[in-house]
Amino acid sequence: MTTTNRTSHPIALRDATVTDPFWASRQELVRTQVIPYQWNALNDNVPGAAPSYCMHNFKAAAAQNAEHHKEGKAFVPPKYTFRGFEALPDDPAHPDSDKFYGFVFQDTDFSKWIEAVGYSLTHHPDADLEATADTAIDIVCAAQLDNGYLDTYYILNGMDRHFTNLKDHHELYCFGHLTEGAIAYYQATGKRKLLDAACRFADYIDSRFGTADGKLHGYPGHEIAEMALVKLAETTGEQRYADLAEYFVRQRGRQPLYFELEDRRRAREDGRNYAPREQNYAYYQADKPITEQTEALGHAVRAAYFYAGAADVARLTGDSDLLASCERLWRNIVDRKIYITGGIGATHMGEAFSFDYDLPNDTAYSESCAAIALAFFARRMLEIQPKSEYADVMESALYNTTLAGMALDGKSFFYVNPLEVVPEACHRDERKAHVKPVRQKWFGCACCPPNIARIVEDVQQYAYTIGDDSSTLYVHLYMGGGVHARLSGTDVRLDVMSDMPWSGKGSVAVGFDAGDSASDASKDAVFTIALRLPAWAGGETASDAVTVRGRDDISRVIRDGYLYLTGAWHDGDVVDFDFPMPVHMVAANPFVREDAGKVAFVRGPLAYCAEGVDNGANLHLLHADTARIASDPSCVSVDRIVFHAGAVAQDEQGLGEVDAVDMPMTTLAIPAWREVEDSAQTSALYHDWRPAERKTTTATLIPYFAWANRGENEMTVFLRG
Amino acid sequence: MTTTNRTSHPIALRDATVTDPFWASRQELVRTQVIPYQWNALNDNVPGAAPSYCMHNFKAAAAQNAEHHKEGKAFVPPKYTFRGFEALPDDPAHPDSDKFYGFVFQDTDFSKWIEAVGYSLTHHPDADLEATADTAIDIVCAAQLDNGYLDTYYILNGMDRHFTNLKDHHELYCFGHLTEGAIAYYQATGKRKLLDAACRFADYIDSRFGTADGKLHGYPGHEIAEMALVKLAETTGEQRYADLAEYFVRQRGRQPLYFELEDRRRAREDGRNYAPREQNYAYYQADKPITEQTEALGHAVRAAYFYAGAADVARLTGDSDLLASCERLWRNIVDRKIYITGGIGATHMGEAFSFDYDLPNDTAYSESCAAIALAFFARRMLEIQPKSEYADVMESALYNTTLAGMALDGKSFFYVNPLEVVPEACHRDERKAHVKPVRQKWFGCACCPPNIARIVEDVQQYAYTIGDDSSTLYVHLYMGGGVHARLSGTDVRLDVMSDMPWSGKGSVAVGFDAGDSASDASKDAVFTIALRLPAWAGGETASDAVTVRGRDDISRVIRDGYLYLTGAWHDGDVVDFDFPMPVHMVAANPFVREDAGKVAFVRGPLAYCAEGVDNGANLHLLHADTARIASDPSCVSVDRIVFHAGAVAQDEQGLGEVDAVDMPMTTLAIPAWREVEDSAQTSALYHDWRPAERKTTTATLIPYFAWANRGENEMTVFLRG
Repeated sequence: MTTTNRTSHPIALRDATVTDPFWASRQELVRTQVIPYQWNALNDNVPGAAPSYCMHNFKAAAAQNAEHHKEGKAFVPPKYTFRGFEALPDDPAHPDSDKFYGFVFQDTDFSKWIEAVGYSLTHHPDADLEATADTAIDIVCAAQLDNGYLDTYYILNGMDRHFTNLKDHHELYCFGHLTEGAIAYYQATGKRKLLDAACRFADYIDSRFGTADGKLHGYPGHEIAEMALVKLAETTGEQRYADLAEYFVRQRGRQPLYFELEDRRRAREDGRNYAPREQNYAYYQADKPITEQTEALGHAVRAAYFYAGAADVARLTGDSDLLASCERLWRNIVDRKIYITGGIGATHMGEAFSFDYDLPNDTAYSESCAAIALAFFARRMLEIQPKSEYADVMESALYNTTLAGMALDGKSFFYVNPLEVVPEACHRDERKAHVKPVRQKWFGCACCPPNIARIVEDVQQYAYTIGDDSSTLYVHLYMGGGVHARLSGTDVRLDVMSDMPWSGKGSVAVGFDAGDSASDASKDAVFTIALRLPAWAGGETASDAVTVRGRDDISRVIRDGYLYLTGAWHDGDVVDFDFPMPVHMVAANPFVREDAGKVAFVRGPLAYCAEGVDNGANLHLLHADTARIASDPSCVSVDRIVFHAGAVAQDEQGLGEVDAVDMPMTTLAIPAWREVEDSAQTSALYHDWRPAERKTTTATLIPYFAWANRGENEMTVFLRG
Repeated sequence: MTTTNRTSHPIALRDATVTDPFWASRQELVRTQVIPYQWNALNDNVPGAAPSYCMHNFKAAAAQNAEHHKEGKAFVPPKYTFRGFEALPDDPAHPDSDKFYGFVFQDTDFSKWIEAVGYSLTHHPDADLEATADTAIDIVCAAQLDNGYLDTYYILNGMDRHFTNLKDHHELYCFGHLTEGAIAYYQATGKRKLLDAACRFADYIDSRFGTADGKLHGYPGHEIAEMALVKLAETTGEQRYADLAEYFVRQRGRQPLYFELEDRRRAREDGRNYAPREQNYAYYQADKPITEQTEALGHAVRAAYFYAGAADVARLTGDSDLLASCERLWRNIVDRKIYITGGIGATHMGEAFSFDYDLPNDTAYSESCAAIALAFFARRMLEIQPKSEYADVMESALYNTTLAGMALDGKSFFYVNPLEVVPEACHRDERKAHVKPVRQKWFGCACCPPNIARIVEDVQQYAYTIGDDSSTLYVHLYMGGGVHARLSGTDVRLDVMSDMPWSGKGSVAVGFDAGDSASDASKDAVFTIALRLPAWAGGETASDAVTVRGRDDISRVIRDGYLYLTGAWHDGDVVDFDFPMPVHMVAANPFVREDAGKVAFVRGPLAYCAEGVDNGANLHLLHADTARIASDPSCVSVDRIVFHAGAVAQDEQGLGEVDAVDMPMTTLAIPAWREVEDSAQTSALYHDWRPAERKTTTATLIPYFAWANRGENEMTVFLRG
C-alpha cells in the first residue's frame, strides 16, 4: 500500500474524555438510563416489556454445565430440535429452567451491555456497577463449554448441530459481540476473565474453521467476528486471531458457496427440494468474494460490519486489492445509497440496501444500527488513509441517524429512522408498518438501543486517531474534551474547546503532561496536529479558518481534506478554528426520484427537518422558497433556542412518551410558502389544474436527531421547493 | 324511496349490439382469444402455464357422485382435511383423479368462462362453442350433490366441514359466480340445465342460511352472491332468492360477528388462542353493518361487489337507509379513494382500499377486477337514480383500468394497474413485487382475465337502461351500435353512431321496428331519450351540444346530468351530439400527497400517460409546462394516429410479448421540459441547490389503457408540473 505511511489507530478510550455539553449529556443518559435499563431488560425485569431471557439462558447453560461436571460423566447434550427463530415459553413469566428462549442471537444482549458498561466504567468508575458486571460475567463464563464454545442457543438446544447453520443461526455473531464486550471490559477494569473466555471461544473457532482439509470452510451469517477478531489480535498480540479474521473476509462468497451447501444439505435432510431462486446470498454479502463485489447489497448492518472488518484486514495485511474493494463499496454507498441523514438501508425488505439512487423518505429503513455500522466502516477507512470524506460521513451518521435512534430522555428508541413520517400512514398503511411515528421503549430484538449505548459511550474513539508513526494526532471530530497521546516521544495533552454541532468555532490547546520527565513544560516537542477540514465548512478552503495563536513557524500542509500543522509545539500553544457553518440548501442527485423537486437543509454536521408541531399538518403542502433563499442566504435565520422535549405521546400504549428535557439547540427559520388548502376537505378529488394559491410563511426546522420528542406528529427532512 | 319513479333496468343483452370499431374489436379479441384460451386453461391445456385443475375437480366430484349413486349406499364423504389455500399435486401433470386441486375458489374458473361464453353466443352464435359449453355443463351438473350443494372443494375434501369457514373458503362466492354464469348461458341459449343447478344450489343455501333459529347466521366471505341472487330472482321470478340476497346484505357485520365466531371456534379446535388483534373483519366489510359503514374499507373487489349487491337490494326493497349507505360509500370512494384511471384499491396489502387520499401511483394495487366491480356498483346506482356522476365513474373504470388489464392482442393481462412504473424498481424493489411492468399470460389465481372477458362481452349492458316506467331509454355510454326497446308500447330501435372514445361527435337515430303492428313507421310514438351529459364535456352545459335534427318540439329537460328529450318521435328522427372533448390538465386534491405538484391529462373518458418509449427514461425529470398549457390550451396537440403495438418484451420468461397490432388512437403532444441530467451519473448524491437546467421538449401521451404494449419501459400518468 502506498498509504502505509499515513495509517493511524484509534486513541485508547481512557486517553480521551468528552466534556462538551452535547456529547457529555448523551453519555450521561446512556450511563444513567440505558445501561441500568438494559440490565433489567436482559434479566427480564422490565414491567410490561417482553422478557429477553438472555441471562436466563446463560444461567440455564451454566446449570447444565455444572450438572455435567458434578456427575463427571461424558457430556450428552440434548438432541437438537429447531424451535423457530424466536422460541418463547408458554407462560412468559415462568420459563423452563433448562430451556433456551429468545432469538438465536439472544446472548448478544449481554455482550452489548457489558461493552457499554466497560466504556462507561472507563470514565465513570462505579463499584456497584462493576460488581454487577462481575457477577454477570461469572454466570456467562460458567456457561462456556470445556472446549471453549459459548453460545447458549446450541448449548441448550443441542450441540450436535452447532456450526451447521452458520447462515442464519448467528453463532459467530454472538462470538463477535462477546469478544467486543470482553475487550471493552478488560480495557476498563484490567479483569481478564471474560477476555480469556472470548479467547478460548476464538481458539475453538480457529480450530474448526479454515481452508485446510477437515476444517469447516464457512464464515459468519451475520458479520462482526471479523472486526472483533482484529481487535482481539491487537489486544492480545495473538496473530492467529488476525489470520482467522482474514480467512473469514477472504473466504466469504467463494465458490462453492458455503451457505448454498448448508441450504442444500438442510433441504435434503428435510426432504425438500433446494430452491435456488428463493435464495438471496447477496443479503449476506456472500454471493461472491468481496473483491468481485461492486455494489453495497443486502442487509445493511451485516454489509457495513463486513466492510469494516474487511477494512481492518486490509489495514493489517496491506492488501491493495482488498482495500480497493472497500473503497469501491464505500463509493457506491456514498455516491448512490446514503440518506442525507447518514442513514443506510433504503428498504425494510431484508433491512437492506436498495438499488442505486432508490432512497425513499417515507418507507426508509435506515436502521440506527446501520448508521452505527457505517461509522465503524468509516473510522476504519480513516485509519488506513485519513481522508476527510470518511470523517464527514462518519460525523453525519453519528450526529443524525445514530442520535435520532434515542429519545432526548434516553428512554425510548427507534430502529427505523424515516425521513418523512405521516402518523396516519404509519398506523393505517401496512406498507409502512415498520415505520414508527414515536420511539418505543425496548424491542424483542434489542439490537439498536444497546448499539447506540456502546457507540455513544465510546464516541471519543471516533474523534481522534494517532498516526502509526507516533508523531501525528488526527482530530476527525470536534468535540469538547481532552486527549492524551505520546507523540514523538512526548506525552502531549490536547484540550479541545468546541460548541459543536451548534457552531464551528473552537480551539485546541497544547499541553505537556506534568510529571513526565520527557515532557518538560519548558521544552518544545515536534509533532503534527492534523485537523479535518469539514466539507460542510467548505472543505479545504476552510483551512483559512484555522490559526495557530502567535505562531507563524508551524507548517501548514493540506492533504485529503486535513490540515497538517507541524512544528515545535510549546506547552500552552493554542490552535483556534472558526469553521464557517452556513446553512446549506441541498438537493439530491436528479436520479433520486423520491427527492425530485425537493430540498433539505443542512448546517454543520446536522440535517434538519420540519415537524408538524412547529409547522402545522400536511407538510407536503409546505414549500421552501428556494429562489429567495438561493439569492439571499442570509434570509435564513439561525436561532439558538432551548428546545423543550416531553409532550405526552398520542400512542395508546404509552409509547413515545418523553420526559421533560430542555436542551440548547439551534433551529432554522426559512422563508417558505404553503399551498392554501382551506376547502380541500370538501372539494373534488380531481380538478382542472390551476396555480396553487400561496400563503407566505416561515418554516421552522429542527435538528433531525431531535424529532419525535414532542408527541406524535408529522415530520419531513425534504421540503418541496 | 323518493326516486322510485326514475329507477331503470339494464337492457337485455340480446337487444343491444356494439358495432363501433373500438368496442367491437375488444369483444372480438375476447371471443377469438380469451374464451378459447380460458377453456384450455381450465382444462390444464396451456403449455407452460400452471394447471387450473378446474374441470379436473368437477370431473372428480362427478365421478365420486356417480360412484355413490351406483352403489346406492348412503353417501359417506371423505373426512375433511385442510390442505392449504392452494392444494397442488406432487406431479403437476398427473393429479390424483379423486382429489381437489387449486384455490378454494377454483370452480369459478368455469363459471366466469361460461358467463363470457353466454354473452358471446348471444351475439355470435357458434355451434361448436355451444356444444363444448354443454359438455362442460354436463360435467359440472354431474358434480352437484343431491341436496343441491355444488362446490367441488368440499365435495372432494369432506362435506363434514362445508359452510364452516365462510370467511375464507369462498363457497358462497362460488355459488354467486356459478349463478351469474348460469343466467348468462340461459339467456343466450334458453337452456335451463345450469340455471336449474344454480337454483337448486340457491334453494339449498336458502334452506341453511337465515335469521331463524337453527339456521346459519352467516354470509359470504367474498361477496358476489348478493348480486347473483337478485339477478336470479329477476330471471326466475322467485322472491326467496331476493330475500336471501337481502338477508346476506343486512346480516353482514351484525353482532355477534359471525366471522369472529368462526375464528374463535377454529382457534378452539386447533388449540390456539383467538387473537383479536390479528383479525381484520373490515377486510371483509364485516366489522359492522353496512348502515354503520362510513368508509370504503378492505379488499376492494369484495367491497365493491358488496356495495353493488346492497344497491340491488336497496332498489328492490326501496329501503332509503340502505340506499343512503350505498350513496355514502360511493361518495367516500369517489371523493377520497379512486384513481384518475377509475381504479380502486390503493394498497396491495389485502388488495385493499387505503385511507382517505392515500393514492400512491407506484405501489397502487388498482386491480382490474376492482375497476370492474366498481362498474357493477355504478351501474346499479344508475338503475336506482340516473345521475351522470355514476356513469362518469363507470365509463372511466371501463375505458381505463378495465381495458388496461388486457394487452391489445388479448393475450396477456394485468392484475395490478399502477399509475407509475419504473421497471428496475419492479425487478429490484420487493416493495413493488406486486407491480409488473409487462402483462402476464395467465395467473394461478385467474380472476382478472375472465372478469375482463365477461364485462367486455357484456359491455353494452352498461350503455343503456330502460326506465321502469317503460317510456324512457337512458343512454349512459356512447358506443356505436344499436338498441331495441319497447317504449310506451312501441318497439323502438336506436342506432347510435359514435367515434368514442376519440371524439364526442355522433348521433342517435330513431327507428320503429318493421313488422310490429304497434309501430307503424308513419306513426309517432311519445317517449323519452335521456342522454348523459358527460362531466368531461362540461356536464350540464354540454346540453347545448345536443340537437334534434329538424325538430323544435321535443322538450328538453336537464336533471342530474341527463338531458331528457321527450316528445312524439318519428321514425327517422336523428339526435346529433357533438360533445366537446377538450384536454383537461388535472390536479389532485391537495390532500393527495402522492400527486402533490403533479398533473395528469384526461381527454373524454380517457386518462393519458407518458411512456419511456416515447419520452425517454427518467420520466420523473419530465415536467408538463403547466403555465403555458393553462394560458393557451390550444398548445396541446391532439393527434389521431395509428398506434403500433407489439415490441418484443424484455422479460426473460417471455412475459409481456404482444403480437403486432395496429390500432387507431388519439395521442396528445404537450409542451414540456426536462431537467438536464447529463452529468448526474458522475455527480455527487447531494449538492447545494440550484435551479434545474431546463430543456424544452414535447411530451407524447398515450391513452392509459394502451400502455405496456411496446415492451418493458417506464410509464407515468402524473407528470410533474
